[in-house]
Amino acid sequence: MTNSTSLISEQSGTEARRTAISILRQRFGDRLQTGEAVRRQHAHTLTWLANQPPDAVVWVDTTEEVREIVNVASTYSVPIIPFGAGTSLEGHTNAPEGGISIDFSRMNKVLQVNERDLDCVVEAGVSRKALNDHVKDMGLFFSVDPGAEDATLGGMAATRASGTNAVKYGTMRENVLSLKAVMADGSVVTTASRARKSSAGYDLTKLLVGSEGTLGIITEVTVRLNGIPEQILAAVCTFDSTEAACNTVIQSIQLGLGVARMELLDELMIRGINAYSKMTLEEKPTLFLEFHGTTVSARDQVEQFEAIATSEGARGFVWAEKEEDRRRLWKARHDVYWATKALRPGTEALATDVCVPISRLAECLIATQNDIKELGIISPIAGHVGDGNFHCQPLIDMGSPQEIEAAKVFLSRLADRAIAMAGTCTGEHGVGQGKIKYLRAEHGAGVDVMRLIKGVLDPKNILNPGKVLPAGA
Amino acid sequence: MTNSTSLISEQSGTEARRTAISILRQRFGDRLQTGEAVRRQHAHTLTWLANQPPDAVVWVDTTEEVREIVNVASTYSVPIIPFGAGTSLEGHTNAPEGGISIDFSRMNKVLQVNERDLDCVVEAGVSRKALNDHVKDMGLFFSVDPGAEDATLGGMAATRASGTNAVKYGTMRENVLSLKAVMADGSVVTTASRARKSSAGYDLTKLLVGSEGTLGIITEVTVRLNGIPEQILAAVCTFDSTEAACNTVIQSIQLGLGVARMELLDELMIRGINAYSKMTLEEKPTLFLEFHGTTVSARDQVEQFEAIATSEGARGFVWAEKEEDRRRLWKARHDVYWATKALRPGTEALATDVCVPISRLAECLIATQNDIKELGIISPIAGHVGDGNFHCQPLIDMGSPQEIEAAKVFLSRLADRAIAMAGTCTGEHGVGQGKIKYLRAEHGAGVDVMRLIKGVLDPKNILNPGKVLPAGA
Repeated sequence: MTNSTSLISEQSGTEARRTAISILRQRFGDRLQTGEAVRRQHAHTLTWLANQPPDAVVWVDTTEEVREIVNVASTYSVPIIPFGAGTSLEGHTNAPEGGISIDFSRMNKVLQVNERDLDCVVEAGVSRKALNDHVKDMGLFFSVDPGAEDATLGGMAATRASGTNAVKYGTMRENVLSLKAVMADGSVVTTASRARKSSAGYDLTKLLVGSEGTLGIITEVTVRLNGIPEQILAAVCTFDSTEAACNTVIQSIQLGLGVARMELLDELMIRGINAYSKMTLEEKPTLFLEFHGTTVSARDQVEQFEAIATSEGARGFVWAEKEEDRRRLWKARHDVYWATKALRPGTEALATDVCVPISRLAECLIATQNDIKELGIISPIAGHVGDGNFHCQPLIDMGSPQEIEAAKVFLSRLADRAIAMAGTCTGEHGVGQGKIKYLRAEHGAGVDVMRLIKGVLDPKNILNPGKVLPAGA
Repeated sequence: MTNSTSLISEQSGTEARRTAISILRQRFGDRLQTGEAVRRQHAHTLTWLANQPPDAVVWVDTTEEVREIVNVASTYSVPIIPFGAGTSLEGHTNAPEGGISIDFSRMNKVLQVNERDLDCVVEAGVSRKALNDHVKDMGLFFSVDPGAEDATLGGMAATRASGTNAVKYGTMRENVLSLKAVMADGSVVTTASRARKSSAGYDLTKLLVGSEGTLGIITEVTVRLNGIPEQILAAVCTFDSTEAACNTVIQSIQLGLGVARMELLDELMIRGINAYSKMTLEEKPTLFLEFHGTTVSARDQVEQFEAIATSEGARGFVWAEKEEDRRRLWKARHDVYWATKALRPGTEALATDVCVPISRLAECLIATQNDIKELGIISPIAGHVGDGNFHCQPLIDMGSPQEIEAAKVFLSRLADRAIAMAGTCTGEHGVGQGKIKYLRAEHGAGVDVMRLIKGVLDPKNILNPGKVLPAGA
């Protein structure tokens, strides 16, 4: 392509976007906004990825409205970027080619709760906290808990989110039963029934979960719920080594204890927590645990776990039963993001994650800590250790090109190492823009299959372009 | 298309198949067979679907050989039908357009067992019994248990099989971590790493699981394993009504007991079992149960379950701990297929399945029993009741067109009713040829999405044509 044709196509692209937006403004009135602050807000990122704002933001109320927007966008080949709560970490909501951000915050209705089936149907903009508030009095809860931020169910489905208790209850992959989505051709698809299992045709639910808005725009989500356990017990214990902590977790999984949460925090993270939360934990690899069950089975889990941990040299095993005690015990884990930032005020905490088979986890964590030392960066580690999934949060002075460069080397080694260890470049954050460069190394010829699917389902490439798949052949 | 062009294309199709087979015969020698008995054996069905044999059967040893066959088949546009153990129930292995059946029975090696990760990698022709024999001494087991027949892992992945303990351990959808598959263009794809979770790109694993050989040919399967529970307890109890049995199951799920198996057998099935297994069970809806856990937690489950069941009027609650006692107690459940046939010797037992949300299960079962009475057929019912999935086995005199017609009406009402109740036309058997006609009713516009995916991944329609998707637009 020569520069002049490129310029023409860019100009005509700008023109087309302008036309599409003026059509949509007539239709949506004040629910379409083009102010810079609003646009930048809808493209914020929590990494060094540049903020790439859309041309306009539309607040939608119904699936039918999404369909209307898709039809206009398709006619003018204008990108659409779905926006939930904007808590994703890899540039998912950026608009590198401009276009229209669809904000789902008004689609926040819980449509059905089927108590006897332990499922519910919600609009894509319902947040997980709102859903849990809604079902709590029925003795139910929604298990997927990606952390500090209150993400929407639509966004969580789109990024295949998980979190602290995925080891027992599964990720969005296991918890989404069905989706309603608007496809690039304007058709509205319901991907599955509410049946717990089905062998009827291709699994469109799982294809859309984790597709990050690039194959279809999720407007409704049907998810599993669980009964709130009769008994919840929390515990913390300290190990002399990362291996000992990992061995404990592996043995408890082999025994089928079904521990609900197993979180590993490294020495540096504990130092941060001690400073931030005014605690006096020993600065050693530490497991934060939660056990769910009946009164009898939860206590049985604790006893069995404690026996395994003790044989691996665990110390300071404390556990809590009452809700306020559990909260206090786990507060340190929940405050990890803020504790991390407090380790080095004025810097950005760049969250990244990888996931490896649990047999390689200790080795991977130690190699990562060695990298951190070698590169001279500060990066505490916290992991959903039962899944082999862990997070690093390099604290970077964004004014220092050297530090940014060191962090880039670090992240790149981290992802390469995870892939080399039969793992994945992201366990739960998604690809977005930030991890596109690792996709070929991880999936090989699978990337071509993904590209064929993307090409046939979105031939004009209007659905969240520039995400997930590497450009070009 | 006129008759003459159709005839010409049929002739050239026959010619092309002949050429492809002669090329493959040169390559595979005696491992390619064209005898009628062998060909018919590879297309056997357990329904009234006609036997439609392939033109040839090739026994493969490696993924590379599968790739060679695909390349030849692609060149000559010849259909390929993957064949595992031939235990599928909806005509999956039929060759309606002729072509080459690929027999995986020689690809029966367990390639890796990763004890600490609780996973393993096997060739597609490994059977679930062979896998369990292989890992038993390591204290591990593979959980998916589709029933009497010993299916291969490749076939089970292809049909998204499940079975009696899916309610606790999941179906093939949850248990397959990764697949190696040969695509229609001859590329070899590994769909995922061994990481327990990933957000890196589209979920090709789940897309291939349940695609019945129509999107790619599965040659290796990576599945989860579980530690053999410390304690397994079995139990049986009798209810006055289907509702009471279903209510018991629903409450135990809401309480999160994690019962491993919950099987409901109806009155007629119990009658058959009494006759076949010389037992004296009360002819009432009956639950067969299995509890897995630590010594403490398995007993706790039994006690909690018994309390719920008793409050729903359960009688004759007997439980067994020793393996031989458990086997005796469950023998009746395992002999269901033979007991059913013994109810009416000389007839065929046509297995079918549907799945509904559990809240609708009792209603669906009762409506089904009413249908059975009204149509004057004999059809016992057994269900994986924890999932809302149940099986009917109409016993049909295949010499009687009237009976076949009545059975067709029955099956069609059964599938339509399940779909109308927010369920699915098949919970675990798959679509094959037999359930294609229900796909549009169940998936609506989703069928068009499936068709686009099929079209782009297999443009010449050589992968198991005539399965899953309805023909035409």
